[in-house]
Amino acid sequence: MTNDDFQPVSGFDVPRFAGIPTFMRLPMVAADSAARADVGIGLIGVPWDGGTTNRPGARHGPRQLRDLSTMIRAVHPATGVNPFKANNCADLGDAPVNPADVTDALERVTAFYQAVHADNIIPLTAGGDHLVSLPILRALGRKPPLAMIHYDAHTDLFDDYFGGFKYTHGTPFRRAIEEGLLDPAKVVQIGIRGTMYDGEDIAWGRERGVRIIMIDELMDRGHQAVMEEARGIVGDHPTYVSFDIDFIDPSFAPGTGTPEIGGPSTYEAQRLVRGLYGLNLVGADMVEVSPPFDASGGTAWVGVSIMFELLCALASRKS
Amino acid sequence: MTNDDFQPVSGFDVPRFAGIPTFMRLPMVAADSAARADVGIGLIGVPWDGGTTNRPGARHGPRQLRDLSTMIRAVHPATGVNPFKANNCADLGDAPVNPADVTDALERVTAFYQAVHADNIIPLTAGGDHLVSLPILRALGRKPPLAMIHYDAHTDLFDDYFGGFKYTHGTPFRRAIEEGLLDPAKVVQIGIRGTMYDGEDIAWGRERGVRIIMIDELMDRGHQAVMEEARGIVGDHPTYVSFDIDFIDPSFAPGTGTPEIGGPSTYEAQRLVRGLYGLNLVGADMVEVSPPFDASGGTAWVGVSIMFELLCALASRKS
Amino acid sequence: MTNDDFQPVSGFDVPRFAGIPTFMRLPMVAADSAARADVGIGLIGVPWDGGTTNRPGARHGPRQLRDLSTMIRAVHPATGVNPFKANNCADLGDAPVNPADVTDALERVTAFYQAVHADNIIPLTAGGDHLVSLPILRALGRKPPLAMIHYDAHTDLFDDYFGGFKYTHGTPFRRAIEEGLLDPAKVVQIGIRGTMYDGEDIAWGRERGVRIIMIDELMDRGHQAVMEEARGIVGDHPTYVSFDIDFIDPSFAPGTGTPEIGGPSTYEAQRLVRGLYGLNLVGADMVEVSPPFDASGGTAWVGVSIMFELLCALASRKS
Amino acid sequence: MTNDDFQPVSGFDVPRFAGIPTFMRLPMVAADSAARADVGIGLIGVPWDGGTTNRPGARHGPRQLRDLSTMIRAVHPATGVNPFKANNCADLGDAPVNPADVTDALERVTAFYQAVHADNIIPLTAGGDHLVSLPILRALGRKPPLAMIHYDAHTDLFDDYFGGFKYTHGTPFRRAIEEGLLDPAKVVQIGIRGTMYDGEDIAWGRERGVRIIMIDELMDRGHQAVMEEARGIVGDHPTYVSFDIDFIDPSFAPGTGTPEIGGPSTYEAQRLVRGLYGLNLVGADMVEVSPPFDASGGTAWVGVSIMFELLCALASRKS
Amino acid sequence: MTNDDFQPVSGFDVPRFAGIPTFMRLPMVAADSAARADVGIGLIGVPWDGGTTNRPGARHGPRQLRDLSTMIRAVHPATGVNPFKANNCADLGDAPVNPADVTDALERVTAFYQAVHADNIIPLTAGGDHLVSLPILRALGRKPPLAMIHYDAHTDLFDDYFGGFKYTHGTPFRRAIEEGLLDPAKVVQIGIRGTMYDGEDIAWGRERGVRIIMIDELMDRGHQAVMEEARGIVGDHPTYVSFDIDFIDPSFAPGTGTPEIGGPSTYEAQRLVRGLYGLNLVGADMVEVSPPFDASGGTAWVGVSIMFELLCALASRKS
Amino acid sequence: MTNDDFQPVSGFDVPRFAGIPTFMRLPMVAADSAARADVGIGLIGVPWDGGTTNRPGARHGPRQLRDLSTMIRAVHPATGVNPFKANNCADLGDAPVNPADVTDALERVTAFYQAVHADNIIPLTAGGDHLVSLPILRALGRKPPLAMIHYDAHTDLFDDYFGGFKYTHGTPFRRAIEEGLLDPAKVVQIGIRGTMYDGEDIAWGRERGVRIIMIDELMDRGHQAVMEEARGIVGDHPTYVSFDIDFIDPSFAPGTGTPEIGGPSTYEAQRLVRGLYGLNLVGADMVEVSPPFDASGGTAWVGVSIMFELLCALASRKS
Repeated sequence: MTNDDFQPVSGFDVPRFAGIPTFMRLPMVAADSAARADVGIGLIGVPWDGGTTNRPGARHGPRQLRDLSTMIRAVHPATGVNPFKANNCADLGDAPVNPADVTDALERVTAFYQAVHADNIIPLTAGGDHLVSLPILRALGRKPPLAMIHYDAHTDLFDDYFGGFKYTHGTPFRRAIEEGLLDPAKVVQIGIRGTMYDGEDIAWGRERGVRIIMIDELMDRGHQAVMEEARGIVGDHPTYVSFDIDFIDPSFAPGTGTPEIGGPSTYEAQRLVRGLYGLNLVGADMVEVSPPFDASGGTAWVGVSIMFELLCALASRKS
Repeated sequence: MTNDDFQPVSGFDVPRFAGIPTFMRLPMVAADSAARADVGIGLIGVPWDGGTTNRPGARHGPRQLRDLSTMIRAVHPATGVNPFKANNCADLGDAPVNPADVTDALERVTAFYQAVHADNIIPLTAGGDHLVSLPILRALGRKPPLAMIHYDAHTDLFDDYFGGFKYTHGTPFRRAIEEGLLDPAKVVQIGIRGTMYDGEDIAWGRERGVRIIMIDELMDRGHQAVMEEARGIVGDHPTYVSFDIDFIDPSFAPGTGTPEIGGPSTYEAQRLVRGLYGLNLVGADMVEVSPPFDASGGTAWVGVSIMFELLCALASRKS
Repeated sequence: MTNDDFQPVSGFDVPRFAGIPTFMRLPMVAADSAARADVGIGLIGVPWDGGTTNRPGARHGPRQLRDLSTMIRAVHPATGVNPFKANNCADLGDAPVNPADVTDALERVTAFYQAVHADNIIPLTAGGDHLVSLPILRALGRKPPLAMIHYDAHTDLFDDYFGGFKYTHGTPFRRAIEEGLLDPAKVVQIGIRGTMYDGEDIAWGRERGVRIIMIDELMDRGHQAVMEEARGIVGDHPTYVSFDIDFIDPSFAPGTGTPEIGGPSTYEAQRLVRGLYGLNLVGADMVEVSPPFDASGGTAWVGVSIMFELLCALASRKS
Repeated sequence: MTNDDFQPVSGFDVPRFAGIPTFMRLPMVAADSAARADVGIGLIGVPWDGGTTNRPGARHGPRQLRDLSTMIRAVHPATGVNPFKANNCADLGDAPVNPADVTDALERVTAFYQAVHADNIIPLTAGGDHLVSLPILRALGRKPPLAMIHYDAHTDLFDDYFGGFKYTHGTPFRRAIEEGLLDPAKVVQIGIRGTMYDGEDIAWGRERGVRIIMIDELMDRGHQAVMEEARGIVGDHPTYVSFDIDFIDPSFAPGTGTPEIGGPSTYEAQRLVRGLYGLNLVGADMVEVSPPFDASGGTAWVGVSIMFELLCALASRKS
Repeated sequence: MTNDDFQPVSGFDVPRFAGIPTFMRLPMVAADSAARADVGIGLIGVPWDGGTTNRPGARHGPRQLRDLSTMIRAVHPATGVNPFKANNCADLGDAPVNPADVTDALERVTAFYQAVHADNIIPLTAGGDHLVSLPILRALGRKPPLAMIHYDAHTDLFDDYFGGFKYTHGTPFRRAIEEGLLDPAKVVQIGIRGTMYDGEDIAWGRERGVRIIMIDELMDRGHQAVMEEARGIVGDHPTYVSFDIDFIDPSFAPGTGTPEIGGPSTYEAQRLVRGLYGLNLVGADMVEVSPPFDASGGTAWVGVSIMFELLCALASRKS
Repeated sequence: MTNDDFQPVSGFDVPRFAGIPTFMRLPMVAADSAARADVGIGLIGVPWDGGTTNRPGARHGPRQLRDLSTMIRAVHPATGVNPFKANNCADLGDAPVNPADVTDALERVTAFYQAVHADNIIPLTAGGDHLVSLPILRALGRKPPLAMIHYDAHTDLFDDYFGGFKYTHGTPFRRAIEEGLLDPAKVVQIGIRGTMYDGEDIAWGRERGVRIIMIDELMDRGHQAVMEEARGIVGDHPTYVSFDIDFIDPSFAPGTGTPEIGGPSTYEAQRLVRGLYGLNLVGADMVEVSPPFDASGGTAWVGVSIMFELLCALASRKS
């Protein structure tokens, strides 16, 4: 298949509310399809929230993100990038999950992404709660460990919950660092805020070299300075990007499980993501969109709009 | 393709919130697919509400009906019918539409259904406003005209609106009778209620032989007696079924443009539709589900649950 | 002005969502208008909920009831009554109120209705909480006291709240009986249900001759038998009708302050109200619609649909 | 403490929206309180939905059920029962749970209820998803096995999901029968409906003697006949009652994870529960209220209103 | 009539939720009223969305804008302008529309505005979708063509949709320029953003001299600099102002059909509109408020608050 | 009791959705509890909105604020303050109220706070409408009068409403100044905006020395400069803090009765409140959260997040 076969349906031809919703109206390419060999960037859903310690619902994220994504058009208004021309993009469907067992679910997701990775497809994921980043990192896992730029209100570097339980949406990056999937000295976390339990997570991260940029620092220095620093930290290293929707202020994105007030606007988020262009990106995710806490779809619209920004960054990556 | 290829995905294997939502998790069969030759019943969306005189939004119906339809399982709990075994069922996608021009939209829908009809596929449609029944009837049009069983709060037998405009969701069946697509003496309308303009629509219909069963008669006689009479009227004649969601009381199905209080429950609706089994059915539709007026999805859930009832009736039809 | 001047705008001419919303698209007749002399039935709002002991919001009722009322057409589908032909109907606007003082508010409403009554206009009121019935009854007050048919989940015969406070939405009819405005032996209450404080209200009423028909009796005997009994009790006596929206089950009408499950359907309510035709009716009200607890407008739609039933009953009254 | 110490706060004294919400405004009695020895019936929350295979959110049920429960008054309007006089009732708080591990969660809940049971307190539980009934039955477990009357749209007798996973909200009663906690010949299931996977659950239950009353049988025979049969089946045997909110039609109770249309009204549900009076009841639960799918609180209001009916039945039990 | 007759009702006298809602509680002046001769600025609704290619509902805009507008008071807090003193303002009602025919609707609206224009009334319009600006411009049409300042996320300079259809809410200003109603060299568009089809609209506009200020330029330069430039471009020329609610970020104004994230705040919008004072303004509109996508009314509140800003600008215009 | 007895329950131990919701999961200390002697800061609800002139519902504020408050953790992310270590904090329950009588309600609230004040407990209040600040100030009343820092969109310095009624949520601070409870020369009001009646309130305040900082001044000078000035004005004087949620832009906090667009973000609000550290604070309140106008709970989440900021400021006060 040629790039022409991987173009999204235009809203000039088919109204944006029509048709079965794939991500950004791209062709659906099943795991066993011959077309898979031609895919450069794969958009994937992980409809799972078994790691959620608070308000659930992120399992419904991929469905609603696909629904709203049919309002996305083809060209970036500020950078001019058309990611669908630069790469063959496709919807690879949802990873298999298990809402009734955490361990089994993590294994299923890992296996799915290992196959994606084996096919040399860059994954752009729609979660799901933040624990889904862990099996993705396991599947992408390589030596040396990856760098990461992480937009979030929380560090997700906690150790355990409820008396020793290690796998929740508050722990993925502690596990990933412990497992050698991420190089903590090349991890940048941006936007951290909200009341703290005791700060142990931040202390643990900083001891290992994680660069944690709290919200006040982001607000005071601005997106340009912060992204310049982040780019300096990850350099040319293979880098993963993780975007938790709760990074953005809940007035813009209320549909999430653990909102924290006092966050950045969507405009600031867009500018920050544009700061990723040209990095050596190996994948990205958008997690924690929880439709039951935002029936209107506004949060999912923010989510897919940021996914488009991430897609443009992936399409503009340095290989 | 064999019947095994047309089975819906089971909720035992893939959670019902996962995956790209086709109608009832059936395979999507595009217009140019070789598989189309094997399809017996086609589920089709018509995302269009250009005939709406009051509150719009039915254009979003097919999207949300597909979304909720992934909670449908395979077997009817009362009749034991498994429609997916009895027929090869598939999602044929959405008919092409035009939100900016009524005439063009009607032509596009007619052409789409003519092709479906030419392929000997029985259509089960998800609207869209009620005007979409007209191009479907045009496409199915044959001599002699069809019979119809019509569940609705309104007759949709009005002549025109706003000073002579003939094509709205209040006029499809007047047009269809005028065009010779329906035999008025074989048309049964059930559930009519709501305040009236002047009753001209009812008078016009009755003069031509339409059997109009107002809500009080339905409530007093019950579903069994009413459906026996309806079956007697349509007999073995090729019969179309049109189900406007506003037939059901708005407490059960608020998401519609022209609700009328004092309607039947979903239970009564289910029993009524089961009265269609064994008729010579040539198609059916579920129209006027308007998601913007029911963000919770409750109405769409009613809509697809009734669509499953209609599908079982189509699967149990007498050919 | 002639009856032609008091006709509602038709949805065939002006779409129902268009125009400034008066009740049922009737002409607005101000207190000082010459047209007032020609009005037979006046639709009036009382936007006040200062008597509410629980969840507030009924002050917003008239606004939303007017909004939804533009979907009402002219003719009753079952009885054929066109109330706008039988009487000159008009929107008289809202009674003056005071959200910050109960006593002052009751006086303002009484004065407004005294003027309406002096002009020989039959009032059809949209509340407001149920305490608004008291100043209306005061304004209508005559010797001998009025009869009343009252649809409600609660008796509103309580004595006082919060340590001796006598004027709340739970006390209007105890006050009205004490003040000699209602003849308790000619008062019928239908649909009473919900958990009770201690039953003192019911005992008090029954001791004075109020006929209290609990929900089970209504459900077991049916609307016809119950209304026959009610008609027998009020006979030819001048009779007021009070309809609390919480009479109807909250699945049909959730937007109210004190919902009680296990109530009648809107269909049953419609049939009950039709049992009022031909009585010597002197006024009616629809109270306790609370839009903040039902943003979708479904409850207000039920409310105005029942108001249309009440209007038809008023139009069919025996003078 | 005497019965006077276990009386709910009256809405005549403190408005129903005021105060910290315990169940039905009862005193909170902690596990280590001396007052616990005097409690006869304990109202308990189990805020957990780790067994949910579809739409989550029942973990938020106890919070919202307590919130709405402050609108409950003291006396049953039809039977005159005041459950707070007949027994010392108290809110025992929430059972400990673990949202991140199914096995651990089941063990915590079992241990909590074993302590309740050891203190001779009858539990009235607010779930949580339906899997919470299993640890409760384990804690109540005795020889011989319990009888059960079960109101639900689903049998919850499924074997496993997602390839062998045995503990979900679709499997609790299969597990309970296998574990000898329930005597299948003394289990009655009422209201079963909704599309079926393949009917294996029903066949398995019927083979073991479970009496499964499908919705059509309930509708055709009525609450009185059905409850007479159910009472005959359980006789004087110690009996548990499980009430899944999805038993009730979703128009009355939309806030649940697996709604099925065509169900009974709340009125029918109330009459059915009143049929439990005088049985040898050992506990009851109300499960599957999922607030994120019904932000208005209507479903929780139905839930606590039915909980009050269950409480009156427990208070009227034969010991 | 004098200016005293054109004062809005004060919230000190009548609570803001009371009364039939006209725009800003102004007197309603019908087309045939003698008072019309004294009106200087007319507030007009155009309840029509027949040009909408995506999510409908703007037809309900005028109704909800009027509803919320009763919370507007009389005096601007920053500039001190009282527009009701400076001019005789009135609600002129809704323009006639036709939801079933685009051509007829445009003609009806044009005719209505021609009469307004003939009466020397400055129109302040509440849409409706953005296509309503076209018939207004046709009615205002004069030689030489008008200047325009246009706040929007989209240029609305597209050529056609769905295969050649020229009249949609994405095309009004291309048509207006083609028809010679607007002088492209005197058109300023501010706030453009969102993913693009292909940029042809922007190229077409820029070729003809339209000054298009993308969101980044607005954010970087600020409201003062941008409005200074805009004022320089339109100079003393007769100027129309068009304000699409989607100019404002959807977190502030979600109720619109085509939201684009990353937009300005309401505060920034207010400051921008204040930059219009003293220009030679001939009319203004507020379009694309779509209540079904924002049942809470928050968007309409933003809309009418901006309408008040526009009204103050019109009242402070240079004639 | 020691400080260990006043620690909030951790979300690491009990999930945040579990348990009966007290403010911030603190122990509930009843008025007659021995523990009260050890309380330093008391969190109190005043569920009352009898002073509301526009949209009601603030009576439901304390319930929903407590509900959302269980998502608050223990440590401030920017300042490191743990208010629960610095002081013994407890939930003192709700003040007694009377929804049916303004005068009685004010007296009940005053008496409750007098007892709190007598016990040397610093009150942090959750309203309720803004009139609740008046009885609190009366209870705290001392010589000389208090200073106040007041965040709000409105001055609440109006004289009367509806013809002379002096006690509404628009008048508390005029009354408080008249009664000598506040020293106007030490009152700072920040964020005033929204259309004005006539500006009399502002003129009255300024004449008496109130420093009124309109929104434009706040936006132009920034939080740091404004708080420096405010700190200078109140100096070491005993100071009360009143925070009306409508200070914050309604996109962040829609659930309030009198929203005004163009307000500060939550981030700006947080920074402003942090400017209170070290002042001689004697109490604070958060008022006008109205859940019926924001069922999602987003506004209450903002409210309790700001309450945590206020609590940290109280905990960091200079005595």
